[in-house]
Order: sequence, then C-alpha cells, then structure tokens
Amino acid sequence: MKKSIYKAHILYTKERSHFEVLENGYIAVDGNGLVAGVSSDLSSLKSKCAKTADDWQDVEVTDFGDCLLIPAMNDMHVHAPQVHNQGIAMDLELLPWLENYTFPEEMKYADTAYAERMYRRFLHTQWLFGTMRSVVFGTIHTESTRILMKLYQEAGMGALVGKVAMNRNCPEGLMESVEQMVDGYESLIAEFGGVSDALVRPIITPRFVPSCTPEMLRACGELAEKYHLPVQSHLSENTSEISWVQELEKESSSYGDAYNRYGLFGQTPTVMAHCVWTRGEELELMKRSGVMVAHCPTSNFNVASGMAPIRSFIDEGVSVGLGSDISGGHDLNMFRMLVYAIQVSKMHYQQNHNCPFLTLSEVFWIATKSAGSFFGKVGSFEPGYEFDALVIDDAVLYPSEYSLLERLERYIYVGDDRQILHRFCRGKEIAEPK
Amino acid sequence: MKKSIYKAHILYTKERSHFEVLENGYIAVDGNGLVAGVSSDLSSLKSKCAKTADDWQDVEVTDFGDCLLIPAMNDMHVHAPQVHNQGIAMDLELLPWLENYTFPEEMKYADTAYAERMYRRFLHTQWLFGTMRSVVFGTIHTESTRILMKLYQEAGMGALVGKVAMNRNCPEGLMESVEQMVDGYESLIAEFGGVSDALVRPIITPRFVPSCTPEMLRACGELAEKYHLPVQSHLSENTSEISWVQELEKESSSYGDAYNRYGLFGQTPTVMAHCVWTRGEELELMKRSGVMVAHCPTSNFNVASGMAPIRSFIDEGVSVGLGSDISGGHDLNMFRMLVYAIQVSKMHYQQNHNCPFLTLSEVFWIATKSAGSFFGKVGSFEPGYEFDALVIDDAVLYPSEYSLLERLERYIYVGDDRQILHRFCRGKEIAEPK
Repeated sequence: MKKSIYKAHILYTKERSHFEVLENGYIAVDGNGLVAGVSSDLSSLKSKCAKTADDWQDVEVTDFGDCLLIPAMNDMHVHAPQVHNQGIAMDLELLPWLENYTFPEEMKYADTAYAERMYRRFLHTQWLFGTMRSVVFGTIHTESTRILMKLYQEAGMGALVGKVAMNRNCPEGLMESVEQMVDGYESLIAEFGGVSDALVRPIITPRFVPSCTPEMLRACGELAEKYHLPVQSHLSENTSEISWVQELEKESSSYGDAYNRYGLFGQTPTVMAHCVWTRGEELELMKRSGVMVAHCPTSNFNVASGMAPIRSFIDEGVSVGLGSDISGGHDLNMFRMLVYAIQVSKMHYQQNHNCPFLTLSEVFWIATKSAGSFFGKVGSFEPGYEFDALVIDDAVLYPSEYSLLERLERYIYVGDDRQILHRFCRGKEIAEPK
Repeated sequence: MKKSIYKAHILYTKERSHFEVLENGYIAVDGNGLVAGVSSDLSSLKSKCAKTADDWQDVEVTDFGDCLLIPAMNDMHVHAPQVHNQGIAMDLELLPWLENYTFPEEMKYADTAYAERMYRRFLHTQWLFGTMRSVVFGTIHTESTRILMKLYQEAGMGALVGKVAMNRNCPEGLMESVEQMVDGYESLIAEFGGVSDALVRPIITPRFVPSCTPEMLRACGELAEKYHLPVQSHLSENTSEISWVQELEKESSSYGDAYNRYGLFGQTPTVMAHCVWTRGEELELMKRSGVMVAHCPTSNFNVASGMAPIRSFIDEGVSVGLGSDISGGHDLNMFRMLVYAIQVSKMHYQQNHNCPFLTLSEVFWIATKSAGSFFGKVGSFEPGYEFDALVIDDAVLYPSEYSLLERLERYIYVGDDRQILHRFCRGKEIAEPK
C-alpha cells in the first residue's frame, strides 16, 4: 500500500468526554494502513512521522476540501440473514415474529444462491452507511456463511462472522448436531481462521442459551479455546428470557454465568448483545472478564425490551459498542444508532435522574473507539490505529453556518448515505461492492 | 381544476384498526380537488362518480404503475424558525438550550431577509418529505410571519401559521405588548383570515402560559373568538413546567384549565403540543372540548420529557395528530414520526402492560385522518376528502418480495425522500418550491 496524507476537518474521540477537532487537519497513513500521525501542521506532521517510519517528504496530500473526516462505523451486533425482514412485521410480539418471520427466513439460507443474493444486498447497505467493521450472525449453514465471509473479503470490509450454533427450541430445519456444528466451524476455520489479524474471521456463535443444549455450549467453548476465536451471543435482553435461562441452567448464578461455565464469557474476546437487564453479579462478571456489551437501542425500542443503563456500564468500566440488530432493529445506518442510544439514555434519565444521559462525544466514542477495540486498534485516529475512516461532504446541510462539531452533530442527526463521499477500511479505500 | 383519475396501489386508513388496500386501484379527483370515489374497478368507479358529479367517461387515467399512493403527511406541531437549530445542541438541558439556541435564533427573524431565506429552506424540507399540511409556530414578528404564509401560498401547501404571542419570562427582544400582538394579528387576518377554507390561515398562538401574562392570554382568546380562528399552544410537556403554571395560574384547576379560562381550549378548534403528562381532569376537559393532542415523539425523547400515553388518549376518544417539533425534535420527515410514535408506545407498554402499544395502522391513521381532521376533510381517500396524496416509488426497496402492506411498512421504516415521486395537496400536484 502507498503511504498517504489526507487533508480535511478531522474529528474523533480519543477520550469519551470530548472530541478532538482539527480544522484543516492532516492525517498520515502508512503502508500498512495504520495512522502514522495527525496534525494541523503539515510539515511538523511529516517530520514527526519520519521519526518512526521512512521518508514522508514526497508523499502527496489528498485534499478533501471542506469535508469532515471521521472514524468509520462499527456494527457490533447484526443478523445478516434478516436483511429481508428489515422494516416489516413490527406489530408482532416476539414469539409470533420468530416463528413467522425470523426462523422461516433463516431456513432459506440452506440455498446458497439465495444466500449470496441477500448477503450482497446486506453488505451493500452496510457499505452505503459507512459501516466498515461488523460482528455478524449468519445462519447454521456453513456454505452460506462461507459466502458471506468471502463477500466481506472481496469488499475489503472487516467482519467477524458467526455460523450460528443451535440445537433445541427452534424449528427442525434450523437444528444441527454438535458434530455437524464442529465440522462446519472447522471447515470455516481452515479457510479463514489462520491469521489472527485477518480482516474477516469466524466468531463462535451460540444463538443463545435457550437454543443450545449444554453439549452444544460446551463444544462452542472448546472451539473458541482451541482456535483462539472470539465469541458472540445474546444476553439478558428481556425478563422472560432471563427466567427461561434460569430454568434451563439451574446451576448458574446468572444468565452470564451460564455462558461462563462453558468457556463463552471472556475466556476469549466476547461480545454480548443487549444486556438490557444486566445488573449486579452479571455486570461484575462482565467487567472482570472484559466482555463487551453490544447495545442495540432501536431494537430495544422496537422489541419493547427496556432501556439498557449504558451510562452505568461505562462508568463501571464495562466496554460497550453499538449494534443495529437487524431486524429487531430496523436501520443499518449506525449514525441513527448513535441518536437512538442518546435517546434511550435520555428516557432512562427521565426516570432515573441520578444517571445522566449520554452526550454526543460519549456515544461517538462508544460507536468508534470503544467498539473498535474488539477488532484491535480500530476506531480512533491516534498513531498506530488502523485507518478506518469516512469522508463526509455535508455541503447540502449548510456547513458554513455551523461549527465543525455542530456539523458533525447535524450529520449524525439528519444526514444520510448521500453525504458519505469516501470510505476507508484499514487504509484502503473501499469501492462500492457489486 | 381538471378532473383526474389516478391508478396505483392505494393504501389509507378509514378506521384506525386496519388499512384499506386497493391493489391496482383507481381514485377519482373532482374539479375542486376532492376525492369523488375510489375503487379497484375503473368502469364502476366512473359510473359511481357520475351519479354525484358530471361525466367521467372521458377522463384519462394517469397510471403510476407499481407505485404506492397514500395520504400525504400532516405536521401538527413545528417551530419553523428553529430550522437552523435542527440537529444541534442536543446535549443541552432545556433552559440553556432555550437561552443559547432557541431564543437567539428567533430574534434573528426581526430581519425579514433572514426569515425569508430560512423559511424557504424549511418549506423545501417539508415538501421533500411529503408534508402537505402543517400547524406552525412562527415568531413574534408579523412581517416574517407574513412571509412564511406567502411562501406556503405560493407553494400550494396547506398551513395554519402562528405569529407567536409572548410578553413575559423571555428575552426583551422577543416581547411584544398586547396591543402590538393584536395589531399584528389583525394585519395578518386582513390578508389571510377571510376565507375559512383557505389553505393558508392564521392560528392564534400564545407560546405557552409561562410566557404570556393573563392580559395577553385574554387578548389571544378574544382574537380567536372574534375572527373564528383556531388556537395552538404547548401543554403539559414536562413536570416542572406544570408546577410553574400552577404557581402562575393559581385559580386554574389544571394547566389545560388555565388556557380554558381565557377561551383558548376548544372554544375554537385547538391543538395542544405534547400533553405528555395530561391525565384525569385535564384529559376529560380535552375530550369534552375536542382539543387535539399534537404528539411529538422524537421531541419527547430528545428533551427527555417522558412518554405520552397515546393509546389511552385515543381509547378515550381524544383526537391526536403527530408533530415533528423541530428543533426539540430533530427530523422533519413525518414518516419517522410514525416509527417514533410506535416506539414511544412500546416503551410505555414495556412499563405498563395493560396499555398495548400502537400498531402501524393506528399511527398511520393518527398521522393522516385523525390529524387531517384539523384542516377539514383531509387525510383519507373517502369521497369528499381533499386529495392530499403522495406517490411512493419504492423500487429500490425490492417491492416484488413483499405484500403491499409490507411495502408501506418498509417505506415508513427505511425509506426516505428519494422515493416520493409526486406530492398532491387539495388535488393539485405540488412542484418543488424554489
């Protein structure tokens, strides 16, 4: 990769309390796609960079004019095979929705041609909205999951992709034996699991405790340990689910502890979706084990799960990212997730005045640097971070009337895909996927 | 106006419980812009229409192919002069926000050139999103308010526009004497108040009780009575506001009763924004007086006001419409307001399981036929209704995979202005405002 220097108005969150804002700033990206330095002054940037890498004097500057340059988005929880169900059947309660929409749709992914068509659609939408890294649920189908992983590779976008493990409390057509699950994973691991810093890798994905027997959960934990793979699942989304898990896993002291007993709760990097009702011991365990929360605010609203107390999570030092959770969530635009995360926190605040709502810099930090930590050094523009970035041309939003921070806030609240001019993942510009 | 017949997939809500769906339906619009009839069969439509009006045999059909044809949107509460503040300063609490953003911005509207520039921007955005009728707050400035009304007239879009009355608890530059208020209104009434079915008319607009002395409120009530003009204001948005009003208006038994005592609560058609905390006697009074609630769900979230119990309002027979409430709300797209209204009701449901959440047909009915009743017969496609309509080309949303109802739901959840192909207000196609 060629070394590059980009000029734009640069905004990012090194710390959650505030934005770093460089008006007409410069950012240097090295041959590995890593940020070499960032500065308002070109010549001091060049000499600073020269200390750690080779010569920067002749590197040309790509000037993005009056555009904003910000870290790209990370979607920490999304069901790719639910892209067809996005924005429909929202009047249904959870159970009829699963039975009539979610599960029948996933069964279609036994057909690899259908899977490829729909996964291309899914990926294209993620690209449109500037989501450069994802933690993704596929289906139980190994070959369709392989297709999704290949599509991410071809696109150059980063993803941890899960073939879903499930063998109880679900339709016949979505069950696999433990052996089939292990074989399927090992075949994906053989193709994608070798390099620990590959952009696209498998992630061990038990759907959630109620859909996996103890044997299935144990096999998942063993795979994660054996191949040093990360883990994702669902946790404490709603109160009836929690009671169900308590019945199924009587020896566990909490829902999170049930995963923990099978080696699926921080033994390798782990992200758990929702955690709306995670409190006390479960929260302590998450903190101790470094398990990340994938907060899915639109889904919390659409499925009427409740309001996750994200402020108290981040104050406790539990790491948090944001997820779109298609199709419990209806929107793949992660910028809308920032807005919804603030709104959930405001409704929570309205009812709990000792827990202040989240600010814009906090949700931006959650969505970028905090979420990005799951992929390595991703989500910030500090030196050594992978250059995942978006160039935002907000000319239609009357930029001359606003400060740079207001321009970013307006883009987040009222902008859309039309204003994203360029997308970068690990230093490489990502072209529109076919 | 020429008689017209349009062909498309027609969806609307005669009743709140369900959609009327006409696949490849026809709708006949008479020379006054009123719906003459709607049917799946062209010849029976023509003969049905011929009974009540003149001949329809030679009227050509405009075919919108696979598009959806639905009633246009109505925004029942919006501060037009806050368009500049849309999507900024969302981290602020109410008081610093009013002091540093809301009021300083409104003061700029003393400058009619500024007002015209910003009001054009505002109107254009409403047009983009298919909002054909609005109930609007302007500022205290008579001439700027006149400009806004003229712009609506030129565009052909319907609006009830309020010059804001306020004379206490606000900055010097936003106060007017009672006489100035009355003179200003009478000048607007002379120009726009004559015809009761004009598309653009004044609406009496005391900002809210805390910003109006008893004399100001009384003068507002007298103007409404004298000129048979509708009334809008804010009501019971948050609990500290309610306590403040109780202090200011000690003789009133509720916040609503305070308006009522000055002739501003249903004596003429009245719409009150928010009503988040309206219960008991105040709700009874609204019901008895036919006062409409302008429910502003995004604003409820952004300003952390609480969750208005809309299900119980409509069950009680209180009429409800939806408002964007720019810039407490951040979005002028009323379709997003439908989504947020469902989401507010779901969070309310999560905490009050005896109060089921709102369904799609219910919020659609609220946003169209229920809200539209404030303007006359607007918001439905029943015969005699004014033809306010949008033609939605959702080709990019994979329409062939979905039922017509699912297509509408998807448009509401994930569509945007790009899919609105035509906009009609009172039978006339509305061109893009300059």
